[in-house]
Amino acid sequence: MERSPSERGGKRASGSRKGRVRADRSQASGQPVAARVFSFEEGMADGHAGLRDLLGGKGANLAEMCRLGLPVPPGFTVSTEVCTWFFEHDRKLPEDLEREVNSALARVERKVGRRFADPRDPLLVSVRSGARVSMPGMMDTVLNLGLNAETVEGLARQSGDERFAWDAYRRFVQMYADVVLGVHAESDTDPDPFHAKFESLKRKRGLERDCDVSAQDLRRLVADYKAIVQKRTGRAFPDDPKAQLWGAIHAVFASWMTERAVAYRGMNEIPSTWGTAVSVVAMVFGNLGDDSGTGVAFTRDPSSGEKRFFGEVLMNAQGEDVVAGIRTPEAIETLAKHSPAAWRELLRIQGVLERHYRDMQDIEFTVERGKLYILQCRSGKRTGFAAVRIAVDLVSEGVIDKREALRRVPADALNQLLQPVFESVQLESARSAGRRFARGLPAGPGAASGRLMFTAAAAEAAAVRGETVILARVETSPEDIKGMQAAVGILTARGGMTSHAALIGRQMGKVCVVGAGTVEIDSRRGVLSVGALKLRQGDWISLDGTTGEVLEGRIATQPSAIMAVLMGDKGAKRRGGKSWRAYEQLMSWADDVRRLRVRANADQPDQCRVALALGAEGIGLCRTEHMFFGEKKIDLVRAMILADTTEDREAALAKLLPLQRTDFEGILEEMAGFPVTIRTLDPPLHEFLPHTEDEQRGLAKQLRISPAKVRARVASLAEQNPMLGHRGCRLGISYPGITAMQARAIFEAALAVRARTGRTPKIEVMIPLVGTLREFELQAEIVRRCAAEVFREQRAKIPYQIGTMIELPRAALMAGEIARGAEFFSFGTNDLTQTTLGISRDDAGFIPLYLEQEIWARDPFQSIDVAGVGRLMHLAANEGRGTRSDLKLGICGEHGGDPRSIQFCEKLNLNYVSCSPLRIPIARLAAAQAAL
Amino acid sequence: MERSPSERGGKRASGSRKGRVRADRSQASGQPVAARVFSFEEGMADGHAGLRDLLGGKGANLAEMCRLGLPVPPGFTVSTEVCTWFFEHDRKLPEDLEREVNSALARVERKVGRRFADPRDPLLVSVRSGARVSMPGMMDTVLNLGLNAETVEGLARQSGDERFAWDAYRRFVQMYADVVLGVHAESDTDPDPFHAKFESLKRKRGLERDCDVSAQDLRRLVADYKAIVQKRTGRAFPDDPKAQLWGAIHAVFASWMTERAVAYRGMNEIPSTWGTAVSVVAMVFGNLGDDSGTGVAFTRDPSSGEKRFFGEVLMNAQGEDVVAGIRTPEAIETLAKHSPAAWRELLRIQGVLERHYRDMQDIEFTVERGKLYILQCRSGKRTGFAAVRIAVDLVSEGVIDKREALRRVPADALNQLLQPVFESVQLESARSAGRRFARGLPAGPGAASGRLMFTAAAAEAAAVRGETVILARVETSPEDIKGMQAAVGILTARGGMTSHAALIGRQMGKVCVVGAGTVEIDSRRGVLSVGALKLRQGDWISLDGTTGEVLEGRIATQPSAIMAVLMGDKGAKRRGGKSWRAYEQLMSWADDVRRLRVRANADQPDQCRVALALGAEGIGLCRTEHMFFGEKKIDLVRAMILADTTEDREAALAKLLPLQRTDFEGILEEMAGFPVTIRTLDPPLHEFLPHTEDEQRGLAKQLRISPAKVRARVASLAEQNPMLGHRGCRLGISYPGITAMQARAIFEAALAVRARTGRTPKIEVMIPLVGTLREFELQAEIVRRCAAEVFREQRAKIPYQIGTMIELPRAALMAGEIARGAEFFSFGTNDLTQTTLGISRDDAGFIPLYLEQEIWARDPFQSIDVAGVGRLMHLAANEGRGTRSDLKLGICGEHGGDPRSIQFCEKLNLNYVSCSPLRIPIARLAAAQAAL
Repeated sequence: MERSPSERGGKRASGSRKGRVRADRSQASGQPVAARVFSFEEGMADGHAGLRDLLGGKGANLAEMCRLGLPVPPGFTVSTEVCTWFFEHDRKLPEDLEREVNSALARVERKVGRRFADPRDPLLVSVRSGARVSMPGMMDTVLNLGLNAETVEGLARQSGDERFAWDAYRRFVQMYADVVLGVHAESDTDPDPFHAKFESLKRKRGLERDCDVSAQDLRRLVADYKAIVQKRTGRAFPDDPKAQLWGAIHAVFASWMTERAVAYRGMNEIPSTWGTAVSVVAMVFGNLGDDSGTGVAFTRDPSSGEKRFFGEVLMNAQGEDVVAGIRTPEAIETLAKHSPAAWRELLRIQGVLERHYRDMQDIEFTVERGKLYILQCRSGKRTGFAAVRIAVDLVSEGVIDKREALRRVPADALNQLLQPVFESVQLESARSAGRRFARGLPAGPGAASGRLMFTAAAAEAAAVRGETVILARVETSPEDIKGMQAAVGILTARGGMTSHAALIGRQMGKVCVVGAGTVEIDSRRGVLSVGALKLRQGDWISLDGTTGEVLEGRIATQPSAIMAVLMGDKGAKRRGGKSWRAYEQLMSWADDVRRLRVRANADQPDQCRVALALGAEGIGLCRTEHMFFGEKKIDLVRAMILADTTEDREAALAKLLPLQRTDFEGILEEMAGFPVTIRTLDPPLHEFLPHTEDEQRGLAKQLRISPAKVRARVASLAEQNPMLGHRGCRLGISYPGITAMQARAIFEAALAVRARTGRTPKIEVMIPLVGTLREFELQAEIVRRCAAEVFREQRAKIPYQIGTMIELPRAALMAGEIARGAEFFSFGTNDLTQTTLGISRDDAGFIPLYLEQEIWARDPFQSIDVAGVGRLMHLAANEGRGTRSDLKLGICGEHGGDPRSIQFCEKLNLNYVSCSPLRIPIARLAAAQAAL
Repeated sequence: MERSPSERGGKRASGSRKGRVRADRSQASGQPVAARVFSFEEGMADGHAGLRDLLGGKGANLAEMCRLGLPVPPGFTVSTEVCTWFFEHDRKLPEDLEREVNSALARVERKVGRRFADPRDPLLVSVRSGARVSMPGMMDTVLNLGLNAETVEGLARQSGDERFAWDAYRRFVQMYADVVLGVHAESDTDPDPFHAKFESLKRKRGLERDCDVSAQDLRRLVADYKAIVQKRTGRAFPDDPKAQLWGAIHAVFASWMTERAVAYRGMNEIPSTWGTAVSVVAMVFGNLGDDSGTGVAFTRDPSSGEKRFFGEVLMNAQGEDVVAGIRTPEAIETLAKHSPAAWRELLRIQGVLERHYRDMQDIEFTVERGKLYILQCRSGKRTGFAAVRIAVDLVSEGVIDKREALRRVPADALNQLLQPVFESVQLESARSAGRRFARGLPAGPGAASGRLMFTAAAAEAAAVRGETVILARVETSPEDIKGMQAAVGILTARGGMTSHAALIGRQMGKVCVVGAGTVEIDSRRGVLSVGALKLRQGDWISLDGTTGEVLEGRIATQPSAIMAVLMGDKGAKRRGGKSWRAYEQLMSWADDVRRLRVRANADQPDQCRVALALGAEGIGLCRTEHMFFGEKKIDLVRAMILADTTEDREAALAKLLPLQRTDFEGILEEMAGFPVTIRTLDPPLHEFLPHTEDEQRGLAKQLRISPAKVRARVASLAEQNPMLGHRGCRLGISYPGITAMQARAIFEAALAVRARTGRTPKIEVMIPLVGTLREFELQAEIVRRCAAEVFREQRAKIPYQIGTMIELPRAALMAGEIARGAEFFSFGTNDLTQTTLGISRDDAGFIPLYLEQEIWARDPFQSIDVAGVGRLMHLAANEGRGTRSDLKLGICGEHGGDPRSIQFCEKLNLNYVSCSPLRIPIARLAAAQAAL
């Protein structure tokens, strides 16, 4: 993570060539672009790392590495401002760009000593896109550009390897046709036409490996490929290298506006005006023999974060061969054997780069006949474990300070550290038995095994039967939602990190692997196949949502090492010691820095224990309805609901009282010393009644009333829109006895816990769904009266507070008035989002469409809609505190565990956030980041 | 309607006795009260009509009449400030009040020439409550106070009529026991204990009429009554007249806080701090022989508004005899025969009072042995017809000006003028055949006949069978809602104008008669009985919700006279000429004064015709979904919803297009010249699909697909909270083809209508349920594109606007941004209320409870919640206009026809209100009142 251009761009800009660089100048539309083409070569560059906005991440780092004197092939970068100009001028390029590109190209020619399009010894180039941030959906790379029928002969002569030259040409035609001309498989199920041609040739010749295909055959393939292009596009494949170059530049810019890129930007709040840069770099070849090769390396282990140089190399290959997965790369250390000088150089350079960028780097390199070239470097992607470990280690090493370390770890990444993992022995045995059959994108962390189901309906039905289900779909759609909900894990064959399955799966907290492209799913016949392997409905399958692995069979899960330690497993502390210590260190720094308190949403003693272990400083939302679902309790609740008279109702409530008191005792004892916010009953009563006829008959029998009466009561309580129905304080106002019972249970429990433990529980009673002060007061009066009664009976007192949730727009609008009564507010942002946006979360199958259409930057149920819901929160916080300056403010919606929302809570100066126990570490870190 | 105290109180206050009166002084709690007891007698008074706040309506008018020199019995009023003091001091009265009351009583004694508690010639008094506004639920009156075993003998001697004296004593004990001591029937089905005793005596003696009971028997009855009191209260009936007086004063004050009074105030936004006054007045007797009598009169006909002195008199009777209904009063004119002098005096006085108060007066009087006394006067209650007629006549007579006339007619009262009435010949024949068997409170205007049903379930089932239903209940509860919805009329035996049935029935627009106390309803056996008459389930019954009459059998209805004239019935104009002319006059004054335009919500040509006849100036909400329910159309809609592919969907839409175009042509032709706001499709698609298995099978067969597929689609479209689901613009974004089809139909229809009529329709296309600018823009783009296509195809253009509904809190919060795209806003206050308050109107059975508990001053679905929803509207109007100064603003929720909400719309400076056609006259008048 480099510093931003405004931090250092200014200083260096003045030193750059011809003073053309003004990194922070905003381009006036229609004006000619001043700074457009930035050259670089070993030892010097127009650009530098600070010009990321202008050169993209790739171009800026290429320039920076040149300035560091590292062996980078020469090249130039066309700036992002040209991209902006391009879209502002109907997809045309500025007139004099050609002159500038030619001049930069000439520099490259001079440096390399070859000329572009020279039939005797041609310069070939790669063309790559690069925006400020890496972005899926954009054109990536064209290699070997500059080849045609003449230059290929020159390349063959110069390299002394005709096969190499024609293979390069074949690769180029295929790549260019694909990414620039758009010739590729016409649907996801069609084969790629070039690949098909190549495979058919190999079959005809009886060859296994690509590299065994002869130069003669490759020559024929190039002709065939070109014929495919002619047929598909109606135009000949361009032979003029300059035309190829401009075609590629055009294509890179155009790819900025593809649907997928636009959707990605929408989701990630990346302005369209940023644009992408294009880097054109002299080709170097890793496939010129056994002293050539190509590879990717990380300056530290991106999985564990361990400080060791880590990577893979494939000798006599171009980069794409690694990706294709046909040949297996070797560990990076083997380079020492193949090319000792290049290895030594690489070791030195990786050190230089990590020190320079002060972060773990991901390095792409090529060795051409023993000479090392660095093609790219960037901050390396890493797992959550690695992110924590590296950040903490870098502080120990004196490279960064604690505050920087806190900034370095994306708070959400901590999620991984706490999710269950596969039991390691079983996992290893599954892997070594070859049961890992596919890999996809790790869209929802955690590990899960379940029975394979191919339709939402089958998944639902199996879940109802009590089975653990993995839902596998080609891709998911809103109609699959109920099936996704029923599954523990979701696997898709298609789609990326922004697909429906990924978005909704993550939101649901499911283990999720998407885009496992080698997997074929036939949901009609109920078969999943990869090559010869066939799995059928009901077969066991295992998904690792952190690594993207897909395995056959069932594998047990266990708590992650950190979770195990947190929950008191000493053995785990020994095994996962380093991760654990890094985690603890980072968390303690976070706790030093943050201002926001972090509480948990929990309503069972065991949840409280987890929450405390993860660092909770109280309960921000203790729902009382979950307590009502125990066997004995639900019967009493139902008797209470079905009571005809107030007396019968009071009798049922009297029986519930001791049970509810026991519930509260468990929680208050666990949390003694920390505040506990207990919400009075919230859901509509029909949620407690049985809905099938059988259950209704059973209940009728048990209560000795007629089934017709049960049915009638269920029918009369049914609601069109339960979300907006008879719930929250509306219940307590209709049935004051419920509130009274709960209040009495709370205070009796609190006194009992104090008597037993000597510690005084900190009680906060929270009235839900309030919209007017009077609703609050009617309920608060009951609570105060019951407290006074209990205190009088027991000749003892404890302090307590009564507050309310702000979860309706009207509550926010009336906050100034409601604060006359309420001693605290807790923003119930789930319901506040539902009502403010008028969207039922249960029915929001259109969320992915809304993200795709850029209607929302992100899912408002994951991250607070700052402009809408946030405005109401701001107003409520201000006006509430206007009335009562010491009003305590918190949030207990699911946004309380979302880093971006926590940032907003910090801005509002809330007192605390409350989230589900597993998100507490995320909230602690996010709160620290917000404070920084 | 007197002027307010601030208008005239100040001047007169200084002239009052001992300068004690300070009408506008607010009482500091705990301070002694300065002005407490106000005396009055013919020719002079401490108070006057301007002191209504302090003396209550009754006390203020008694004082005013004394000042006018009218024959009012002397008395005094204890002020409302004493009531406030009473509740602030734990229901105690100020210490020196006794001295003041005694002194005022002494004045009365001097004036009358009798002494209170004097056994030889006792002064008797009446004690009556009176708040600023008349209010149900409060203690009303105790007559004949001051009687005991000694004074009754004095009264007998002085009157020379022992029977009269003992009858007065009997009445006093019964009344005092009832209203002061709370001794009455213990439940609504029990008999009154005093009444039972009296009736049993009459039976024993074989007597028909009360007045035939002998003095001896009355003496015995008094003893029996006192025994009942002793038994019920455990204490003897008070014999000390002073104790009786203080008991009564206490009871009046206490009745200010009865549940019913509190509920009424909650609903009518009357602050509890107002308090009630108590007036103590010397008794005069209408039952001292045939030259005595009592009556009630109106200065004009309160039913028609005709200018004629109107009323009833009952000779030799006390007021309560009129109410009891045992003897039938005679027309007021008969007084001329019984007591010519009193008649002449009454005629003179009614003129004085109407001129003085400049409004129709309701006068209570008593004639005691030929001498007339006025006991009360107030502005008379009147029907809507009379309100209009009187206001317009008073202008012709030069008594008030047009603006005052507009203020005088409660806008809601116009509702009566337009509701259907019973066909007059049939009604008369039913009445004369004695088919009118009960009378209740007229809670929902209009006339309806239907088959009698006794349970909500039976009503629903009958309605499903296609029957017209009247639901009769003892009283209704939230569980009856669906049955109420299914019925055309509702009858209850119990409950007042603020009962559940009255509130909900009015809200639903049902004909509603409540509190028909003589009716006995046995819903278990399915019998309604009044005396010998028994009606059973399925029998026809007729309700007049404007008069409260309940009749046996079926009576045809017809449009009201005014409605008939408006709809072009010339004969009606002749028959209902005077009402019609007054209505037209008032409406034309209203139209001159109002600023707000008034539009109608309508989506059929015949609705448009009604709307235009009632004065609509456009359509503010044309829903397009209702058009989809025609037989042919619903099939196409269903085919469209069930389409698997975009092609199939487009094909179904293409078939819908000409049908939808025809719909729009009908409306646009009717409304040509006026703006028409057409809303694109709003409801979730599942509303169009069949929900029973049979229907689903039928649909499957028709579309040649499997029933399973129909079922699956219905299931996949089902929603937890449809109100917050996939509807509004969310549909149009998911299925852009629907919006495109509708847009095309609109513009094709508009051009066709222009070609046919030569008049250019004024099109406003409205996008529903928008929450972000981008949603609006995505839909607006489709509309603009379709408009451009149609215009190009037809080489013709018409101007149009595109706007949005503001019906989500987020839309209001983002209004400034949304106005960048939208050319108009229409506040959809139904949904805005549902989302802001988080209340589904369909599930809001708790509304009556909320009104009763004073949580809401009034039903937020009837009258805009100004503090909450109104704040959002205010913000949206301001910020919307901030972006676009000429932004057109309207309202199309049901609040658009509610006078109080219209007042608020005027404050917001909206351009128009839009309401259902029948409420247009109300809206026109309310808009004028708001402008005044």
